[in-house]
Order: sequence, then C-alpha cells, then structure tokens
Amino acid sequence: MTEAIPQFLRERIQSIPAPDPRWRSVAQNHLDHLTKPVGSLGVLESIAVQMAAIFKGEMPTEFRKAAYVFAADHGVVAEGVSLYPAEVTAQMVRNFAEGGAAINVLCRAHGCKLTVVDAGVSGDLSGMAGVEHRKVRMGSRNMAREAAMTEEELAAALEVGTLLADRAHADRQNLVALGEMGIGNTTSASAITAMLTGCPATEVTGSGTGLNEDGRRHKAFTIERAIGLHFGLRAESASAAEILRRVGGLEIAAMTGFYLAGAAHGMALVCDGFISTSAAAIATQLAPNVKAYLFAGHRSEEPGHRRLLEWIDLQPILQLHMRLGEGSGAVLAMPVLESAAALYREMATFASAGVSQAQ
Amino acid sequence: MTEAIPQFLRERIQSIPAPDPRWRSVAQNHLDHLTKPVGSLGVLESIAVQMAAIFKGEMPTEFRKAAYVFAADHGVVAEGVSLYPAEVTAQMVRNFAEGGAAINVLCRAHGCKLTVVDAGVSGDLSGMAGVEHRKVRMGSRNMAREAAMTEEELAAALEVGTLLADRAHADRQNLVALGEMGIGNTTSASAITAMLTGCPATEVTGSGTGLNEDGRRHKAFTIERAIGLHFGLRAESASAAEILRRVGGLEIAAMTGFYLAGAAHGMALVCDGFISTSAAAIATQLAPNVKAYLFAGHRSEEPGHRRLLEWIDLQPILQLHMRLGEGSGAVLAMPVLESAAALYREMATFASAGVSQAQ
Repeated sequence: MTEAIPQFLRERIQSIPAPDPRWRSVAQNHLDHLTKPVGSLGVLESIAVQMAAIFKGEMPTEFRKAAYVFAADHGVVAEGVSLYPAEVTAQMVRNFAEGGAAINVLCRAHGCKLTVVDAGVSGDLSGMAGVEHRKVRMGSRNMAREAAMTEEELAAALEVGTLLADRAHADRQNLVALGEMGIGNTTSASAITAMLTGCPATEVTGSGTGLNEDGRRHKAFTIERAIGLHFGLRAESASAAEILRRVGGLEIAAMTGFYLAGAAHGMALVCDGFISTSAAAIATQLAPNVKAYLFAGHRSEEPGHRRLLEWIDLQPILQLHMRLGEGSGAVLAMPVLESAAALYREMATFASAGVSQAQ
Repeated sequence: MTEAIPQFLRERIQSIPAPDPRWRSVAQNHLDHLTKPVGSLGVLESIAVQMAAIFKGEMPTEFRKAAYVFAADHGVVAEGVSLYPAEVTAQMVRNFAEGGAAINVLCRAHGCKLTVVDAGVSGDLSGMAGVEHRKVRMGSRNMAREAAMTEEELAAALEVGTLLADRAHADRQNLVALGEMGIGNTTSASAITAMLTGCPATEVTGSGTGLNEDGRRHKAFTIERAIGLHFGLRAESASAAEILRRVGGLEIAAMTGFYLAGAAHGMALVCDGFISTSAAAIATQLAPNVKAYLFAGHRSEEPGHRRLLEWIDLQPILQLHMRLGEGSGAVLAMPVLESAAALYREMATFASAGVSQAQ
C-alpha cells in the first residue's frame, strides 16, 4: 500500500474479511448430494460454492440486484484515441436517464435497480434528473501529458464509490453489477492492464468502440508513451494506487472504491467488461481478499480483458463477443448467478427423492 | 428422404418455411441505428436477427416459454455403458413430477412451463400425475444386438413429438426448450454423431454421467460394433431416418418429431445438450429449413457435442461446462434470448436519443 491511498480507504481495506473456507466445503458437500451426476452443473456449482462462502452458508432466497454505471470523461481523448467525440459521454448519460440505453433495457428485463453516477463527465449535467451527481472534475487530465488525477482527485473519486457502496449496503443490495460509460476509457483500462500484467500495450489494446488497425496502433503507442512518461524505468515497482492515479480515470477510481467497500460489506460483486474489470484488478491489488467477492459477468472482445481475467484468475460466466460496457455483460450474467443459487437451495437430494446413486 | 420416414412426417417436412432473408437485413439495419457502437452487442445481435426472421419482423413483446423433457430407456444399457442403473430414468421422472430436479428449479426461476413426457420409460408410470403418458415401448431395443426401434416404433415416437408440438402451438408457445432424461442416451447420441459426422466413435464418446477412461473406451467400442452391425460398409450412405431408427432412442425420435413440427409452426426452438442436439441434427438432415429455427442453448462437456454443433453450424449461447441434460442448458439460455429481443425492441436510436455517431 502506498502514500496514494487515502487513510479512510486503508481502514476499509483492512476490514474486508477473507471468507471462511469451511463454507466452501459445506456447500460442495451439499451439491454432491443433489439429484444430478456429481459435478454435472459445471460452472454453476463453482458459483454456488463461492456464493455460499460470500453469504456465510445462508444462500439468499431472493437477491436484491443493482447495477451502477459510473460515467466520466478522459483527457486523453485529445490524443485521438477514440472514434466517438467526448460529448457522447454526456449524451449517453442523458440516454441512461431517459431509459433508452442497453443497460436500461437489461435492468428492466432482469429486475435490477439502476443507478447512473456522474463521477466526472466533462459537461454540466447538474440539472439532469435520474443521475447521481458526484462529479469530481470535468473529466480526468490527459495522461499523455500529466497524471490523470491529483492525489486529492483520486481520493475524491474513490470516495464516490465507497459512499455508493455504503448506501447500497444500507438498501440491502447483495448482488451488484459495476459498469461504466466514458469515451476514451478503454485507453485507461489498457494502460492499467499493461502495467499490472507487464504485457506490451499493443497486446492489451483493442479497437474500443470500433477503431481500425491504424487507430488501434496509435492508441497503443499513446499508452506506451504515457507509461514511459509516468513510470520510466520504475514500471515494475509501481503501486496499484499510483497506476490508478496516473493512467486511470475518475469512473475507474470510483468503481475501485465500490469494489473495496462492497467487499467489506459482503456483497456479491459482478464485474462487467474490460474497464470494470480493470477497476476490480486494482482493488484486488490493494486488498487481495476482494477477489472472493468477485464474479466475472462476461469476457468482452477487448484483447486486454482476457489477459486481465487470467491475471486476476476469474472465469467469465458469459462469452458473447460483447464490447459495450455500461454493465451490460454483468447484468446479463445475473440470471445465471441467480440460477446457481436457486439450484443450490431447491433441488432434491438423492435420499429425499429416492433416486439411486452411481454404481 | 427414405422409406423409414412415415407419410405424415413427410408432409410436415415439406411445410417448414425457409424464413425470408429480407427480415434479417431489416433487423440488422435496425440494430445498427441503436445507441451502441455497431456490432457491440455481439451474439445478442445475431440472436435478434435470427429471431426477427423466425417471427417475420414482429419481435414478440413477451415470450411464452416452455420446456419439454422427453424420457425413455435404452436397451443398450445391458452392455454396461452407463454408471447409473436403468431404473434411475423412472426415478428421475418421479423427481421431475415432484418438482425436485434441476430442470424444475430452472423452469420456476425463469417462468418456463415444464412438460415431462414418458416416451418410453422402462417401468410402469401410468399412475404418475404430472407426466404426459406417451410410452411407445418399455425402452428401446439393445442397439448392440438389433435396431433400437422397428419402423412402427420409430413412427410412433416421432408422432409423440409432433403431437406435443401441435399442442404447444395451440397454446401459443413460441420459445421452447427440448430436453431429455434417459440412462444410456449419450451412447445413442454418440452413435448418431459418429454416423452423421463420419468421426470415429472414440472421438465423439464422452464419460456421460461420469464413466472413467476404461468405461468410456468400452462405451466407444460398443458403439463402433453397433455401427458395424447395422451399417457395415454402407455407413456413409445411411439415411438420417435409418440412423435414428437403428442407433437412436425413443426420446430422441420424439424430440426429432418436435423439432420438425415446431419449425413448421414457426417456433424458436432451443437445443439443450448432446442428446437434444443429436435429435436436432437428425431433424436438419430430414429438413434443412429446420436450422433457421434452432438456437443452441449451451455447449456441454461431452466431446461429441462440440463436433455436432460445428457440423450443424450452431454457435452455443452458454459454455458453462454443464453435462446434465433435462433441458437445463436450454432453459438457462432463455434469459439471454429474451434479452436480445428486449434490446431490439426497446433501445433508443442515435437519432431519437440525440447521441452523436462515430466520426
């Protein structure tokens, strides 16, 4: 842990409990007695075991589901790293507020409460209803020229996430998807991934919202140059907090804060795509116990997402070639997560159903 | 088409319409105007396009979802190809009727009407409530010694499926999962797959409910010998109907009948695992237009399932290492299918939401 971590977060990090491994073995034993061949529910069994650990053996009979979309702009867009103009972030926040975006449709379809958070959109949204106004700054600074955030801005952005996680806990939300919207934010996610995994930027930089190969290469070069500028020869020893501050973004830092505080509250946290997972990756670096609370909703088309999931060691639930963000893949995975819990709770055992076991 | 196909089914086969390709281009054009980067919903977009074609441009606002579990026994179990005794089929039918199996839980969780069909269970279930009694025979014949079905038995089993598809259509069901229960039925599915794809049995034979490597090898040898017995040197020219009759099973034939009649009625049909897909594969051989109505709910752990999906050219929606059957993977995929339709219907367009497009 480094100087970049504010004091309030250090206390949170220390309060994240490591789940008792006993719940995992109790759960696996229960699954092995249900009326199905041993192990035949595959990933659903791993999910149920992890849920049992998170919820201390009391599998919820119903989940209070929620999705949080953290929006912010990125100064690095000035370098020409995105196909869409920066004003699309604000336009999409309006679209979320009016119910027309993919995440709105998915939240309605799956009974998931949606909260849209302005963590740092470059534009005045203060009059917009249906938005949680938590703007730290009008977009992060341009990482190609300076650190994306000052220490104070990083602390404020992390606190946006912890405050919302506290409110989610007060509302008894226990299955929470974290998504985002921010033109330019795959550039931050790629930079974070390159720093954490040690991969060259070009291997973890994708086409984002649809760049061609020339555009993708320019984006990767921009990231390499920013890494050189900020970390020079000390890239391998950089702390997670400094990586987040220098090449992250306001919405990414807010999600990191939510992952940390959500885990401290014992919620099941569902990562969405590349950007959401980059915030989760930073959180696991700051507090390894966070990992036990994470589910990977899906694996996106961004090449860096696969690397990052492998690096954290999370198995994606869905692989549907999506690359939208907004929490879409995480909310789409919720019926699978709920199904795993329902199977665990409701299936008959061989003994109760009078079914013969394997010979 | 061969002599083994009964006349009533020939008429069904000819009545399956090829969807008008116009609906696909109308749907893709609509998707490209929604507020998301082009193509960023990945597989959900392919699903929506296929749905638009099936439903002739009128995307359902709500699906009437149903799952059918066809149960039957297999004479080939006498050869020692399964880890579980044959009586488990009847015991599991009772478990379905009492609501304790995985498919019951999943149908309750996802609002899906469940019908359990005795297509040929070896045991008297006639007094059992909650079961559709359509027993053709007390299990299929042992394919290692004779054809699994006579021509009359095959016709009767196919008709079980077509009758239930007709009833489903009368009930306005439009999103239907086909699953099964039958100790020994991965042996039939592997034999069908070996015949259709031309792969050696050992490559398309898995561990079923949990055989060890010796058991799996014995199962593959049993399949190879049965194929030799029934088709000799004429394996490559065998008709789909003769493959189904000689090495299939009563529940597989019933599902084949349902796939054919369901497609004729214009339903969206969701394949489950290896056995359900083997019935779909036979149906596509008898009537290539069936393919346009099929969704692959998931890819199971059985090695033959991957081969068969590739051979039909179906992309599995879920890949969760499941190997249970019962329709479990198909019902678990339904929220994804419904989400694709909801996104298609409900998302705002760039124009309606005032969002800038890519530069």
